[in-house]
Amino acid sequence: MAKIIVEVMPKAELLDPQGKATANALRRGGATEFVDVRIGKRFELTVDGEITPEILAKAEQLAADVLSNGVIEDVVAVAEVAA
Amino acid sequence: MAKIIVEVMPKAELLDPQGKATANALRRGGATEFVDVRIGKRFELTVDGEITPEILAKAEQLAADVLSNGVIEDVVAVAEVAA
Repeated sequence: MAKIIVEVMPKAELLDPQGKATANALRRGGATEFVDVRIGKRFELTVDGEITPEILAKAEQLAADVLSNGVIEDVVAVAEVAA
Repeated sequence: MAKIIVEVMPKAELLDPQGKATANALRRGGATEFVDVRIGKRFELTVDGEITPEILAKAEQLAADVLSNGVIEDVVAVAEVAA
């Protein structure tokens, strides 16, 4: 079955404590090339049947309304994934 | 600065209660086209300077060792993002 990926990240201007903790852990482990880490969510929506433009538009709407919190998060991608 | 995206998903064979709850919420809301939802993590690693093959390889290593739990998760993508 076809899948749509929705990716949601914390708004850039917000502090990301989990990301900071991960960045510090990488640095302590010697991976100093990575100066910052931010952590968001990746949703895989399985679609029954084909992905039509209408279904993709509905996924975009759901991404904004249900799968993310518009106050603290941005939807950064909504895309069909080759099966 | 350049960024590397690491995407981690729960292993396919594992129950994903958050995903199931989200799928049920979508269905109750009338979005019956989406028969399943799985939720994972999306990491943005900011790199100081250029992304070399060595840095990408290091990110892959960190994705497996630090950013994911190999018992319950799979790393599904490690890729450079155009700035």
